[in-house]
Amino acid sequence: MVDIASRVYNHKWKIDPIVRSLIDTDFYKLLMCQSIFRNKPDTNVKFSLINRTKAIRLAELIDEGELREQLDYARSLKLTRGESTWLRGNTFYGKRQMFRSDFMEWFEGYQLPPYTLEKRDGQYELTFEGPWHEVMLWEIPALAILMELRGRAVLNRMGRFELQVLYARAMTKVWEKIEALRELDDLRIADFGTRRRHSFLWQDWCVQAMLEGLGDISEGGAFTGTSNCLIAMRRDIEAVGTNAHELPMVYAALAESDAELAQAPYKVLADWHEEHEGNLRIILPDTYGTKGFLEHAPDWLAGWTGIRIDSGDPATGAEVAIEWWKARGEDPREKLVIFSDGLTVDKIRELHAQFAGRVKVSFGWGTLLTNDFRGLVPNDALAPFSLVCKAVEANGHPTVKLSDNPEKAMGPEAEIARYKRVFDVGQQQAMKVLV
Amino acid sequence: MVDIASRVYNHKWKIDPIVRSLIDTDFYKLLMCQSIFRNKPDTNVKFSLINRTKAIRLAELIDEGELREQLDYARSLKLTRGESTWLRGNTFYGKRQMFRSDFMEWFEGYQLPPYTLEKRDGQYELTFEGPWHEVMLWEIPALAILMELRGRAVLNRMGRFELQVLYARAMTKVWEKIEALRELDDLRIADFGTRRRHSFLWQDWCVQAMLEGLGDISEGGAFTGTSNCLIAMRRDIEAVGTNAHELPMVYAALAESDAELAQAPYKVLADWHEEHEGNLRIILPDTYGTKGFLEHAPDWLAGWTGIRIDSGDPATGAEVAIEWWKARGEDPREKLVIFSDGLTVDKIRELHAQFAGRVKVSFGWGTLLTNDFRGLVPNDALAPFSLVCKAVEANGHPTVKLSDNPEKAMGPEAEIARYKRVFDVGQQQAMKVLV
Repeated sequence: MVDIASRVYNHKWKIDPIVRSLIDTDFYKLLMCQSIFRNKPDTNVKFSLINRTKAIRLAELIDEGELREQLDYARSLKLTRGESTWLRGNTFYGKRQMFRSDFMEWFEGYQLPPYTLEKRDGQYELTFEGPWHEVMLWEIPALAILMELRGRAVLNRMGRFELQVLYARAMTKVWEKIEALRELDDLRIADFGTRRRHSFLWQDWCVQAMLEGLGDISEGGAFTGTSNCLIAMRRDIEAVGTNAHELPMVYAALAESDAELAQAPYKVLADWHEEHEGNLRIILPDTYGTKGFLEHAPDWLAGWTGIRIDSGDPATGAEVAIEWWKARGEDPREKLVIFSDGLTVDKIRELHAQFAGRVKVSFGWGTLLTNDFRGLVPNDALAPFSLVCKAVEANGHPTVKLSDNPEKAMGPEAEIARYKRVFDVGQQQAMKVLV
Repeated sequence: MVDIASRVYNHKWKIDPIVRSLIDTDFYKLLMCQSIFRNKPDTNVKFSLINRTKAIRLAELIDEGELREQLDYARSLKLTRGESTWLRGNTFYGKRQMFRSDFMEWFEGYQLPPYTLEKRDGQYELTFEGPWHEVMLWEIPALAILMELRGRAVLNRMGRFELQVLYARAMTKVWEKIEALRELDDLRIADFGTRRRHSFLWQDWCVQAMLEGLGDISEGGAFTGTSNCLIAMRRDIEAVGTNAHELPMVYAALAESDAELAQAPYKVLADWHEEHEGNLRIILPDTYGTKGFLEHAPDWLAGWTGIRIDSGDPATGAEVAIEWWKARGEDPREKLVIFSDGLTVDKIRELHAQFAGRVKVSFGWGTLLTNDFRGLVPNDALAPFSLVCKAVEANGHPTVKLSDNPEKAMGPEAEIARYKRVFDVGQQQAMKVLV
């Protein structure tokens, strides 16, 4: 068992890479990468870091030299033989050879492309431009590096035992959550916490604690796996995840007319439908408003395995999905609803109580599993915050995301207005974005 | 930094000795051993384990084979060259060569003598008989072994992460105490927690946490050292302690008349006076009642450096000592009062507030520093309890201890009555014995 406090203490005098593997990333990034590699190989995109918590002035907290050092180190990484073997040979959602040979051959030669880094208004402007399937793999390591460097800046000022006690307190918090979750019958929950984790070692600890505390799904437990491929490989558990907003965002930006724009989110899923089945057929409906998306969805989408609710009021989103399935002649009890937005134990308990039995419920637990250091240091300097890394342009066109929460909307104002019109998005309820 | 939870986890499948060194004992045991070696080399004594917490049925919790294994391992220990060098060469309370050559030569050849072990009424009857200076060194390892085996019986049933979280919670408890103590100006506090510690590694952790959290006395901090020689040696801090009840108890048992009995406690200190000065001249007045002891004390005792309050109401004991010093023409502000009985943070805060400035105050913190696992497991199965190992006979005569708390009295009833008469012990206030 790794002594995290000691390792962090040692960070003080030597460089310790934050990201040490190309598969220290979310499983769905690799799935999407493969899909893009096949379907949109010539698309140029720009990814950009966006700190939605402006009060946290990252450029004042994190040394630029250290940041470059970490980003440069990540660029030096190549897929190892063991990692390649695992990706090629492992079973994902019961299916072998999830990753095709042409994709794996490309990935085996891959390195993260160059980045552009500038400081502006106390924030870092960190961008990545190039072929979509090349730059999109920066998202998770870039976020993980920024989150961890910000944490280290605080930890560096702490004594050895103070550090150990900090981790003791954080462990206790995680364990108390696990003890609370253990009370819920037929719970299904996975780790989705890579991007905004406190650190790799900490995420690894949290995953193992979940595994021991809740039990593995394969042995009748509640823990269904982790989105992190490296941890899944090392701990011999399921790698989980399906697809994200970047697919409809880029497809939409590439649309050449309003009519094409309106169809873009369905085109994404048509491509996905062709490639995947079962647990990978999970609808992410909120990019341009869940309600309109479902109303205008083709019938074949109702046959998909489930839906992921990632913004807006989650209970409302799930009720909308249930009504939609019923209207399309599907039995909601056969459908999977995955909640993955800003989950706390109370929220999980509440959603579980409301939906268990009515649909198959599952939770993708992110930041508040792997980075809940709230209340543990003065000024709450380790509390998680809302950092994202998004595709902001595709072939020169700006991307837009609306989601079911106007606080999460992004893109140029005029484009947001156009998307709202095209996707018939009415009044939306604003909700505070915690992480 | 040792990962305690991992180590404990590993205990499950291999033998892991609880006591690994002859100097994993209290410093004052070695000081007393030397004194006995010189002054009472021909005294035969019997030491016996006494579990004052009858509800904890040790013989049902601890496997006899495991207990014998640990005791036998302790018997195999000999002083190592490094330990001998440290005892011979180190400075204790500013003085070199605290241990004389003849004593060190004897100690270098020493091994713990045989023991007798039987089960009765759910308890272990563990006794050690022989020359006083030989058997008296069993006290601390015997207690540490019993305490730790009882803990292991509980820990053995726990999972790996459950264990780590247990220690995380215990660390947090210790650290919160340290944070509270940090608020007290001019605090002086030492670790006295060897005998009833949770484990060696845990005591070592607590000592280091105190060192970091309170600062070393040599650098202006509040932490004055540890009673544990092995930890003092390894962590390069002060070994502290002076003398204990066993000296007056055995001296008293050897007395051949009531008049000699009445003088026995002073004879102990006369022998000690000859050998030691400064911080080692600390009166332990409560063996047969503090009040009578001080009233009848010779004047030279008032010149000693201080007093240790180890039973009864500590504030009352300290007030009695202050009045006594005043009556003997001494300035209490120049005197040291060491509190060492059942200390909690609240009690330390209270005593500090009442006595700081009026005397030099110091604390010897034992069980509730190194074994406060209260409330951390079901049925409080790791809560500390009141286990002691005492001289019960000397040259065939039973020993008696009264102390300032009738709950702590020990010895045959008729002898207790005789001692109460000889030492003029009036009404005593009973206080619950926690540890």
